[in-house]
Amino acid sequence: MLQSQLFSKTLRTVPADEVAVNARLLTQAGFIDKQLAGVYSFLPLGYLTVKKIEQVIREEMNAIGAQELIMTALQPKELWKRTGRWVTTEEVMFKIIEKDAEPSVGLAWTHEEAITEIAKRFINSYRDLPRAVYQFQTKFRNEPRAKSGIIRMREFVMKDLYSFHATREDLDTYYEQVKEAYLKIFQRCGLKALVVEASGGAFTKQYSHEFQVLSDAGEDNIVYCLSCNYAQNKEVSQVQAGDNCPLCGQAKIAQGKSVEVGNIFKLGTKFSEALELFYTNQVGERCPVIMASYGIGPGRVMGTIVEVHHDELGIIWPEEISPYRFHLLSLGEGDVQVKSEQIYNNLSSAGWEVLYDDRKESPGIKLKDADLIGLPWRLVVSAKTGDKLELKKRSGHTTEYLSFTELMNKFSVH
Amino acid sequence: MLQSQLFSKTLRTVPADEVAVNARLLTQAGFIDKQLAGVYSFLPLGYLTVKKIEQVIREEMNAIGAQELIMTALQPKELWKRTGRWVTTEEVMFKIIEKDAEPSVGLAWTHEEAITEIAKRFINSYRDLPRAVYQFQTKFRNEPRAKSGIIRMREFVMKDLYSFHATREDLDTYYEQVKEAYLKIFQRCGLKALVVEASGGAFTKQYSHEFQVLSDAGEDNIVYCLSCNYAQNKEVSQVQAGDNCPLCGQAKIAQGKSVEVGNIFKLGTKFSEALELFYTNQVGERCPVIMASYGIGPGRVMGTIVEVHHDELGIIWPEEISPYRFHLLSLGEGDVQVKSEQIYNNLSSAGWEVLYDDRKESPGIKLKDADLIGLPWRLVVSAKTGDKLELKKRSGHTTEYLSFTELMNKFSVH
Repeated sequence: MLQSQLFSKTLRTVPADEVAVNARLLTQAGFIDKQLAGVYSFLPLGYLTVKKIEQVIREEMNAIGAQELIMTALQPKELWKRTGRWVTTEEVMFKIIEKDAEPSVGLAWTHEEAITEIAKRFINSYRDLPRAVYQFQTKFRNEPRAKSGIIRMREFVMKDLYSFHATREDLDTYYEQVKEAYLKIFQRCGLKALVVEASGGAFTKQYSHEFQVLSDAGEDNIVYCLSCNYAQNKEVSQVQAGDNCPLCGQAKIAQGKSVEVGNIFKLGTKFSEALELFYTNQVGERCPVIMASYGIGPGRVMGTIVEVHHDELGIIWPEEISPYRFHLLSLGEGDVQVKSEQIYNNLSSAGWEVLYDDRKESPGIKLKDADLIGLPWRLVVSAKTGDKLELKKRSGHTTEYLSFTELMNKFSVH
Repeated sequence: MLQSQLFSKTLRTVPADEVAVNARLLTQAGFIDKQLAGVYSFLPLGYLTVKKIEQVIREEMNAIGAQELIMTALQPKELWKRTGRWVTTEEVMFKIIEKDAEPSVGLAWTHEEAITEIAKRFINSYRDLPRAVYQFQTKFRNEPRAKSGIIRMREFVMKDLYSFHATREDLDTYYEQVKEAYLKIFQRCGLKALVVEASGGAFTKQYSHEFQVLSDAGEDNIVYCLSCNYAQNKEVSQVQAGDNCPLCGQAKIAQGKSVEVGNIFKLGTKFSEALELFYTNQVGERCPVIMASYGIGPGRVMGTIVEVHHDELGIIWPEEISPYRFHLLSLGEGDVQVKSEQIYNNLSSAGWEVLYDDRKESPGIKLKDADLIGLPWRLVVSAKTGDKLELKKRSGHTTEYLSFTELMNKFSVH
């Protein structure tokens, strides 16, 4: 991509009302644009990034046999009344005015009701179980607090997965598979997520599990063992910082602020009973289907990455989800520009993802913008580099000088 | 994909309130599920199909240099008031209840306001022009008529492209490029679209252009020349069926019902003046940016394909956008099933897109379901086929018998 043609530009100033680091950096670097409090457009660079995160999630969902579909944002009151969630969720549910009457349509902030109704058409027998379906769908939540940039949005895409089982054992097995898949997803996105026990919330009386990333930008507080995998949300925990770990007994408990990047819930038969999703088992009995739901917000993951991976100069994208892998800067005119263009064309032909800064800007501005945008590898062509290229990792401090062939070899090995 | 594991099933009955052919066939074949009038979920088969249509559109948009982004559904009243469209569009715009006050947020049914505001951040000089950006975004329209299945939805994805130009000449050139790109898109989707002159509607006083596909399912009426490319929407046309063509004079004018599958508008400076999107030209003058917008609804395209490509037995998908290219049916047990499974595994390994009907159903049901679902190529393994496979094109009437190697050769040539 030619940076001179990019729809967005880096901005010199950020709106004063943006306090979150992720919102400030992503706005300044031209990744997002605020429409309303908690409502952001994703500009071409941001769109590429969030689509890469979605693709990581999609691959791990497909790997555990889940099928992709897409449900609707507009939802009928009658359906939500049957699970008792039309009234209880009214603070978070946007409702729609139709001809001055009592609203009968709302905007989905989750899809348990919708998927349960759909599943009734297709699940009738134990032979139809288990099933798992997921979607990437825009959710609307009328959050009172929307001050965390793209970490807490009022309109956001969520990957929500729903699974349907005949037995609790089958649910438990699949639930563990999803847990592993989620850990893989966060790892691929450059995040170290802890599996944290939390309240089941409106869904269940059992613990649910949250995936939490330690960060001062977080709105959650967790306690966690410094040695083993023990971790609980402070809201449900009896344990305090400084205690010995109740699980391993080997280490102390620490406490920290964290961002919830995913959560998984065993719903049990709450929705299947309310909406009458039953199946016939091997001996002819009608039983409610056992369900679970699992959510990740790709935009929130993107915001959390920025909170965790940045320095005073800008963003530092992890390799797998960076909008482009290389940032090629042409620092000069004439021969330098001719050489840069040739390199850009050669790399593009080889299928490399390159953002090429061909703008008529000073070297200082180009270097500063490259740090702000934060692609993993910076390639510089200048009078100084001669017939070599200067290569620098955004997360490192050293540069090396490579010929084009050496560059190709270095990255084709990986 | 194993059909036994597919989340949806073919249905024996279709809800009586579905009158449109596309809604009836797509519901029965398990592609879509109705949530509200004009509001449909896309189930795994339907999701795959609409994503293929989106990919065709994306490729042709990228080919004309447009950049993908995604804007927001939630829109502020203040912005829409500045173009005068908060009130005039209230019939179609869903508005949101917030704490009993006058609504201040609506759901976008189009994005001219939003993109113009965003563009102000990045377009200041003639050097920043031209630009073109597009999105696939959920639009909400409170349509009074929503009886045409997925051809007229109240919640639907639209690909909307917006272009920004310094001069009318530059706009005209790009407008023609988009027109060609749109014709390519519809051709790849198996649709013969006519470029039809129509009213500029709320946007412009010039003609706009609609892309219309002749079909009795359509809500539009067009007149068109049986020989040349002349076509007009009946709403704006002075010409009648039976007249001589006013353009070529060589042939008669015909009239027909049609579905509008896309439209393109020259917006001129309507939005840039209202929202103050100006650029500085080469001699330092401030001028309003000249704009155009261009829309295609992938769901409507999918519905139109079904209206145009079906017979009494079911859907007939065009090759490029079919959810799977091959439908492999195992009509038998024992050896037949072992052989089918082997073929399925071999084809899948070779990267072929195959839906494999491994269900324990009768041959009659499997053949009927295959015709209903309508994948382009049907492969049958049965006791009768011996060591060959029976191949039939969904749109044809003849079958042929091929060895596995012959099958591979036949399709690797293409």
